[in-house]
Amino acid sequence: MKISDIGEQGLLQRLQQFCPSEIIGDDCALIPTHPDKLLVVTTDLLIDNVHFSDRTTSPQDVGFRAASANLSDLAAMGAKPLGITVGLGLPKDLDVNWVEEVYQGLIQCLNTYNTPIVGGDVVKSNVVTLAITAFGEVSPNFAIKRSTAKVGDAILITGYHGLSKAGLEILLNPTIGESLNKEDQQTLIKAHQRPKPRLDVIDILHLINTNNAIISGMDSSDGLADAIIQICRMSGVGAIIEKDLIPVNAIFKKWLKPEKALDWILYGGEDFELVLTLPLDLAETLVKQIGTAAAIIGQITSENHVILRNSENKTQKKLNLNDGFQHF
Amino acid sequence: MKISDIGEQGLLQRLQQFCPSEIIGDDCALIPTHPDKLLVVTTDLLIDNVHFSDRTTSPQDVGFRAASANLSDLAAMGAKPLGITVGLGLPKDLDVNWVEEVYQGLIQCLNTYNTPIVGGDVVKSNVVTLAITAFGEVSPNFAIKRSTAKVGDAILITGYHGLSKAGLEILLNPTIGESLNKEDQQTLIKAHQRPKPRLDVIDILHLINTNNAIISGMDSSDGLADAIIQICRMSGVGAIIEKDLIPVNAIFKKWLKPEKALDWILYGGEDFELVLTLPLDLAETLVKQIGTAAAIIGQITSENHVILRNSENKTQKKLNLNDGFQHF
Repeated sequence: MKISDIGEQGLLQRLQQFCPSEIIGDDCALIPTHPDKLLVVTTDLLIDNVHFSDRTTSPQDVGFRAASANLSDLAAMGAKPLGITVGLGLPKDLDVNWVEEVYQGLIQCLNTYNTPIVGGDVVKSNVVTLAITAFGEVSPNFAIKRSTAKVGDAILITGYHGLSKAGLEILLNPTIGESLNKEDQQTLIKAHQRPKPRLDVIDILHLINTNNAIISGMDSSDGLADAIIQICRMSGVGAIIEKDLIPVNAIFKKWLKPEKALDWILYGGEDFELVLTLPLDLAETLVKQIGTAAAIIGQITSENHVILRNSENKTQKKLNLNDGFQHF
Repeated sequence: MKISDIGEQGLLQRLQQFCPSEIIGDDCALIPTHPDKLLVVTTDLLIDNVHFSDRTTSPQDVGFRAASANLSDLAAMGAKPLGITVGLGLPKDLDVNWVEEVYQGLIQCLNTYNTPIVGGDVVKSNVVTLAITAFGEVSPNFAIKRSTAKVGDAILITGYHGLSKAGLEILLNPTIGESLNKEDQQTLIKAHQRPKPRLDVIDILHLINTNNAIISGMDSSDGLADAIIQICRMSGVGAIIEKDLIPVNAIFKKWLKPEKALDWILYGGEDFELVLTLPLDLAETLVKQIGTAAAIIGQITSENHVILRNSENKTQKKLNLNDGFQHF
């Protein structure tokens, strides 16, 4: 039996039997190290022509995006970063500049969050390979898990969605962005090439969550719809999302048909925003503190599905990950 | 300029400018997380046909050796393991059994040391790639660094050297082992395929180093000579090694010419024993506690070179890594 016969999910299910069940299933693993600290660990493998390509991503952007994705996983757990390690598999005829520029990109992202590269490994490989492991720490009562959403919690997102997808589409097919001015094009392209991990949100939460309210959540790296559905599945709850409450970037409004905009917002992915469920009053305070494009978009319910409600035309549909966006 | 123009060392030098200088240069990075704990992190990338091969290594052995190498790096820092992450890059036509057997090998090694696999990533790659990150913790006054060897310290090794190299040679060229009985052949092959990280030595040290003596050291994964030379370089000291004090396995004695045996012992590599420098009285206690093949083989000196002394014929030579073993 080949991997292609069972797919990534089939393989992951088989491999999970080798891991402690209480540790897996979140953006990062949580490992108790001290009575009031958990070690938080996440790892990503990035492969040339699978996860990045010279066509859309400069070596500096490869580094920046890799660091950002891993720091976003730490943010998704409520953790503060401690450092990352970098493993590189490199063909021997690769240009040294390429490698140094990847590191420059890593550092440009990491320096913003005072996170050092603490080690690594460099080996020969025929395929350019980047293996990043990021680790951080969090207090046990502050860890953000996917499995603790409660009925009545507000569902909050920390920023615009769909911009990274739009930037990628413009990079792959520049003609689709021709009706936009240069500045708007660059905003979207930058959203794809230089996504920001929302560690700033975690800093704010540490200040305002003085009652130690339980916050559930994850990042939206695989799309906004995916994040909401994963949280509901892991928590055994449902959700109702108000379509009109989802922030739509001004560029999308003037450029895209509403159906297309909603498709990219829900299913685009790689925005690295946070999707959090938390008590309404705390959510309202957090939205004010974050500012731009943070919004409460719905509520956790006791149903076993995620509903997207359109208050305008009174329709609603179930969100699921198999069929992508369907028109109202 | 290509990587092949400057080599691995040249590339590493360029990349080290991106890392905090106080953190690099040991088997693992040490990251302060708590007043009395350091987080210890190490990462390895293993590539098909570079680091392992179907010719000498079953998938279970690939897993076992990968876990062992990373746990050995933790042992080399005096750390206790907390967990590992496993990143896999896999061709889609790879047999699922191969992947499961790698995990079985990982678990066979890890279970001995109560170390869980806490997470990972599975992605598509044309080259089978294994990225392991291991992390552990150690008290600051118990961390074993390469840079703290002191003049007068005893130099201790925790077991036989050269066996892994001998096993590899037999696997590559079975005829050279024909004069050995099956049991001896298997002992050597197993030393190559199933090396043990010496975390047991760290447990003993925690019990007997009640005066918090400073212990320097590293593992002998790149060879015994390499370990001694690296420790001396990083500590700004020299060493004198007594050839007659280096334990020679009974199989070597009956099978190899003394020059060949010494070559493999000094330069073979991948034995994953520990090379430690510490006060003589503590070293003597540790040798007794470890038992089999642990030995004090020399002393740290104030010279700037590593001398191998042959008391039998009163000759001595400088050890260095460039010319490998030379006859007395």
